[in-house]
Amino acid sequence: MDEATSVGTGETKEPSHDTSKVWGGIDLGGTKIEAVVIDEAGTVLGRARHPTPGDGDPSDVVQGVYGALKEAAQAAGTTPQRLVGVGVGAPGSVNANDGTLAHVGNVGRGWEEPYPVAADLGDLVGSRVVLGNDVQVAVAAEYRLGAGRPYRSILGLWWGTGVGGGLVLDGVPWRGRGAAGEIGHMVVKPGGARCGCGRRGCMEAYAGRASMERKARKAVRQGEKTMLFDLMHKKGRPRLTSSIWDKALQQEDPLATWLIERAVRMLGAGVASAINLLDVEAVILGGGLGTRLGPAYAGRIHDAMSPHIFVPERQPPVLVAELGELSGAIGAALLSQPPMK
Amino acid sequence: MDEATSVGTGETKEPSHDTSKVWGGIDLGGTKIEAVVIDEAGTVLGRARHPTPGDGDPSDVVQGVYGALKEAAQAAGTTPQRLVGVGVGAPGSVNANDGTLAHVGNVGRGWEEPYPVAADLGDLVGSRVVLGNDVQVAVAAEYRLGAGRPYRSILGLWWGTGVGGGLVLDGVPWRGRGAAGEIGHMVVKPGGARCGCGRRGCMEAYAGRASMERKARKAVRQGEKTMLFDLMHKKGRPRLTSSIWDKALQQEDPLATWLIERAVRMLGAGVASAINLLDVEAVILGGGLGTRLGPAYAGRIHDAMSPHIFVPERQPPVLVAELGELSGAIGAALLSQPPMK
Repeated sequence: MDEATSVGTGETKEPSHDTSKVWGGIDLGGTKIEAVVIDEAGTVLGRARHPTPGDGDPSDVVQGVYGALKEAAQAAGTTPQRLVGVGVGAPGSVNANDGTLAHVGNVGRGWEEPYPVAADLGDLVGSRVVLGNDVQVAVAAEYRLGAGRPYRSILGLWWGTGVGGGLVLDGVPWRGRGAAGEIGHMVVKPGGARCGCGRRGCMEAYAGRASMERKARKAVRQGEKTMLFDLMHKKGRPRLTSSIWDKALQQEDPLATWLIERAVRMLGAGVASAINLLDVEAVILGGGLGTRLGPAYAGRIHDAMSPHIFVPERQPPVLVAELGELSGAIGAALLSQPPMK
Repeated sequence: MDEATSVGTGETKEPSHDTSKVWGGIDLGGTKIEAVVIDEAGTVLGRARHPTPGDGDPSDVVQGVYGALKEAAQAAGTTPQRLVGVGVGAPGSVNANDGTLAHVGNVGRGWEEPYPVAADLGDLVGSRVVLGNDVQVAVAAEYRLGAGRPYRSILGLWWGTGVGGGLVLDGVPWRGRGAAGEIGHMVVKPGGARCGCGRRGCMEAYAGRASMERKARKAVRQGEKTMLFDLMHKKGRPRLTSSIWDKALQQEDPLATWLIERAVRMLGAGVASAINLLDVEAVILGGGLGTRLGPAYAGRIHDAMSPHIFVPERQPPVLVAELGELSGAIGAALLSQPPMK
């Protein structure tokens, strides 16, 4: 979700709801902390973005989260202490019950052991803090305020460094026993490509940005030509970002095109499998690559699903996420609100 | 579900519930109609099995259903007219809203157009008739009265002629827009084996009994040796039934063993994908092959899932269905009852 380009929420002109109550939301990522303050209807009243403390321990990260939240609250004309509740969306292992977060390898200085984020941050803000999975809360935000609004049941496909997923079924976010939505680790080819998770044949092993970069580096070592890494150096980036992939595709770079087409084919097979199992109404395409390439590629993913859809006349649309880079933070804030009506 | 071997429901000795209300359930299959009458707790008070009219049109099939229901009611000491409601579980395209059934190619004399089963049968019994998908209702029965009792969320894997599925999520059967549960058409190998549905690489193309029989016949034409068809002729059957597969496996027939091992490998990949997506608590293994081979093969399916499970320490158990050949009829009857508490 690091490269979303548009923000779909605007301030409502004449709010018909109680505007005195406000909630805070945090999207905790490996490189940045995105904070928002929203009202009851989900309107963003203030926002702030801080870099994630790169070499701190979990308590430093919590301080960084508090700093971002404070700035977002100021922008909304309030203080963190006046928030009714705060939600935090994070990668890694979220334990929503005891409010701890673990295995967040890419946040701070190697964060493996469970850390009581909810209690720590709760002491600072003086209100209840709830934790959720970053993709699940982003999908819930799209369901309520974004591209999923017309539907009761959606599958979120978060296409970025990895491939994440989230489900809303008949209006309720489905989390299983806490780990639901790992659509990137659906098997699209038993014994196939090695995935970042260590297993083989996962959808993410073909479609995740990190996997595609590994494959591209290998191809270059084997003598293939591509502009991908030239673009990367020109932009001074250490990694192939979504905008670099986008640029290379626009320039019809053969390696980039081949890798993305393979990714789309595998996304088609995996998402079609999910649809055959769940028969939801729509697929919402988000994440860094999904948001960046969505306008051009949502239709291609839809087409790649088609040959595998069991009830062809009811194939769901693939729609690009609308809330952009704020979906995670807004979704986290919604998580701290009372359940939807 | 045509070859289940055990029935797990018995009559309760001292019912603590209202025994004056009874419901009827029908499992409409290609070869037989299974009928039950149950009380509020799901106890089977009467049952009957009639052959499905082989060369009749849909109205003849409805008459056959009524005949089976009448006999089950008599066995329960009542009449069809005294049933509070009747549920019918059927293959094909069930339209639960308008009570019609279509595309039931293997029932009667080619049944394609929607036929108003609920209205027709309702006129005969004088109470409300509801329709449901045969596998979905069987899984719901296992959830409430069978192997799924300890859980709130289960995935039913119905391994038989085809590979069907059913979901109960947090206590509620999940049907999507009506077509959920088609786990057999999850893609385990893009571009792979041709499936009975016409597509390629579906789990059913490797694990469905019909697909395995096609593959076995092809192997024999190519000179491979197997006892499968000798057993079939000896038993005077036109098809490789589950008991024939079981026998051949016990005799370590190489072709049968190879085909079943391949099926188990593909079931493992597909079901693991479903678990990574949904994170349910348990997998219930039913259907003709599932019930027959379950005691020996549930563990093997569990093992075949293991390499693909994203949260290994939370891999769900694979449990054999307990209601046997009556699960479909009981589930259909439950469908006609008020919602579970």
